[in-house]
Amino acid sequence: MRISVNGEAPRVIIVGAGFGGTHAAHALRRAPVRVTVIDRTNHFVFSPLLYQVATCGLSGDEISAPIRFLLRGQQNASVQMAEVTGFGLEKREVVVGDRRLPYDYLIVATGTRYNYFGHDEWQRFAPSLKSVADAARIRRGILHAFENAEMETDRERIRALLTFVLVGAGPTGVELAGALAELARFTLRREYRHINTNNTRIILLDAAARILPGFPQPLAEKAKAELERKGVQVITSASVTGIDAEGVTINGHAQLASGNIIWTAGITATPLASALDAPTDRLGRIKVMPDLSVPGRREAFVIGDLMTLERDGAAFSPGLAPVAMQQGAYVGDLISRRVTGQSDPPPFRYRDKGKLATVGRSFAVADFGRFRFAGFIAWMLWWTVHIIYLASLWNRFQVLATWMWAYLTYQRSVRVLTPESPDLQETGGRAAKR
Amino acid sequence: MRISVNGEAPRVIIVGAGFGGTHAAHALRRAPVRVTVIDRTNHFVFSPLLYQVATCGLSGDEISAPIRFLLRGQQNASVQMAEVTGFGLEKREVVVGDRRLPYDYLIVATGTRYNYFGHDEWQRFAPSLKSVADAARIRRGILHAFENAEMETDRERIRALLTFVLVGAGPTGVELAGALAELARFTLRREYRHINTNNTRIILLDAAARILPGFPQPLAEKAKAELERKGVQVITSASVTGIDAEGVTINGHAQLASGNIIWTAGITATPLASALDAPTDRLGRIKVMPDLSVPGRREAFVIGDLMTLERDGAAFSPGLAPVAMQQGAYVGDLISRRVTGQSDPPPFRYRDKGKLATVGRSFAVADFGRFRFAGFIAWMLWWTVHIIYLASLWNRFQVLATWMWAYLTYQRSVRVLTPESPDLQETGGRAAKR
Repeated sequence: MRISVNGEAPRVIIVGAGFGGTHAAHALRRAPVRVTVIDRTNHFVFSPLLYQVATCGLSGDEISAPIRFLLRGQQNASVQMAEVTGFGLEKREVVVGDRRLPYDYLIVATGTRYNYFGHDEWQRFAPSLKSVADAARIRRGILHAFENAEMETDRERIRALLTFVLVGAGPTGVELAGALAELARFTLRREYRHINTNNTRIILLDAAARILPGFPQPLAEKAKAELERKGVQVITSASVTGIDAEGVTINGHAQLASGNIIWTAGITATPLASALDAPTDRLGRIKVMPDLSVPGRREAFVIGDLMTLERDGAAFSPGLAPVAMQQGAYVGDLISRRVTGQSDPPPFRYRDKGKLATVGRSFAVADFGRFRFAGFIAWMLWWTVHIIYLASLWNRFQVLATWMWAYLTYQRSVRVLTPESPDLQETGGRAAKR
Repeated sequence: MRISVNGEAPRVIIVGAGFGGTHAAHALRRAPVRVTVIDRTNHFVFSPLLYQVATCGLSGDEISAPIRFLLRGQQNASVQMAEVTGFGLEKREVVVGDRRLPYDYLIVATGTRYNYFGHDEWQRFAPSLKSVADAARIRRGILHAFENAEMETDRERIRALLTFVLVGAGPTGVELAGALAELARFTLRREYRHINTNNTRIILLDAAARILPGFPQPLAEKAKAELERKGVQVITSASVTGIDAEGVTINGHAQLASGNIIWTAGITATPLASALDAPTDRLGRIKVMPDLSVPGRREAFVIGDLMTLERDGAAFSPGLAPVAMQQGAYVGDLISRRVTGQSDPPPFRYRDKGKLATVGRSFAVADFGRFRFAGFIAWMLWWTVHIIYLASLWNRFQVLATWMWAYLTYQRSVRVLTPESPDLQETGGRAAKR
């Protein structure tokens, strides 16, 4: 139980400034420790709203806050924008390029990345949505599709350009599909003279028998009905077996010509996780102890999307933001107690406050266990919850203003395209840029 | 005087959707013509506010509006996102790659680019500010400088990273310098633990004997005093003779080590202008007739930054947004009259409504000819004028909200950096990205 070394405050290194990392840092604000937060980017992203950035509803800046800004009042915390390349758990070190940073406590909160099921070459044609850069890339692809269709004369080519395929019908895929349908059918309706944006086909695929696996079936049915009402074509039991510049292949034989494929299916651990040298599940997520520590390493913790916890005989790894937030607070509190000589808290237990997924403007599904509902009330609730959880007061105000405006006027004006974006020159392959 | 060809409405092609091009299209909204607006990007940019994007005060989306959005209600106008590669004035054609678009009237409003005085190789180390992509690039450079300085241990290197040099003290350089000083000294003050952002050096250079050549000297003096009060070092009679990855060389011998150089000096015509095969001034700007037409081509016009007009024996080419706006309206009106059989209007005359330049928060200089003033009132006026001129109602609301917030709290939160930006790996050379 380390309280201080050579009279200096213990060092806590937090890797990753997402929901888990930021909440852990915040929980340590009064503890007699020195906190260092390391992230590859300089900002925290409110990732549940990334789909809005991808469909021109919000700009990346509106859902991000600089990590330094969030921690500016916390004197015991400093921030480094750097990439952690490895861990030395035995020596209690974090490796950052050619630097080795010693720690007394380590919190790894680096999240996961999208899983292309052994076909990483598909990523070039089907971007996923994990960062602001991803969202900007997807948005560019969508807008270029309409611009190119407007100038195109070949009818088959126009049809392919105006066909959007989303692979994976979890909350992200559902939310993207709904917002994309509105963008095409409402926002852009009056702006093109040679194409009719109502002819846009939006196809949501999933290999499972139904959409939204994390939600009860009746709610998933309602969400599906709403998507179809908006003009989205939902195809289940559809396994993607091929993706290239021309489109997707389903179940080995059915071809869909599309100029825009978005990957929203399946996650997996990032390569860095293996450097923790700890037991993992089949997706590479770290199997942690009941106090979220790495087995055999009482001072190293893994929280958020990257961890999996055994609870009541089942694996608990929902990959949700509220889980990461509660785990960050839990580990921060645990470390605070240790450095002040108090006993450890009881094992982590997630307090499930419910799940929400939205389907475009004014419709959402909400699952609070005993209470479930769908429609406008759920959508208002989703909106309120998201605003409350936004990371900084500034973002809250801006996002509120943008949403109010979009709701009143259907306007989504976050649509800057420049000739520098490589999309103009190539079809399919798109580099992530911001 | 072409009214219609084969019973079809005359075609007007407008190249460039800046202040000039958009106002020309708008002026033709009731004319019996078919308007095609061609721009390399898909958006209009309110360029006077680009310096705010470069210094994290606004995001690029907040000062941009999609061209299609601006023209959505104008049935006689269509938009193409494409790059014009040449002109065939004899055949009355615009060349777009391998397409040839015929016109009855042509309006060229493509603007200018920055002039590196024969040293285009300096552009790699000293970006200029002409587009949202440029502003984003400069912003990344600024933020990376602080991030890298925070992790740096070598004192000389820190000093170089925290030294910003702006070359050219026209309105853009002055506004950038003032905003940068505020960003460093106020916004970022509490966010770093290892560097003191008050130690940031911001140096504004100009080869002339004083700053703001377009303003009366007393006002320029006041602006200089305000800059110095904010901590900006103004050095006049300083001609830049070299720029590289380490910094700038002044007057052939004085070296300034800097990790961030921004070029705000001098403009020149873009290469496309030479395809007009018309007389130009020494910067390549087209010398137009009193009705803004190309000599010998009554149906082809050049407006905005790219034109120069002889007026009272002197060259009139101020490169200001209000000039482009009035010229766009003038040419649109002229074409409307011709296609409806009316006589041409009198020669173009610019109605000078005054000039404004801001120096950070709450200070500006204003020149209305007989009336000149400086300080807070001028700043309020500048703010009001800019909001009014913003291109769309949406932008107006968002920018108003952002400015009010920044003014009240000194917060500038538009600061997203991602590891994809190449700045992390190289010093000096930065690619324009958005």
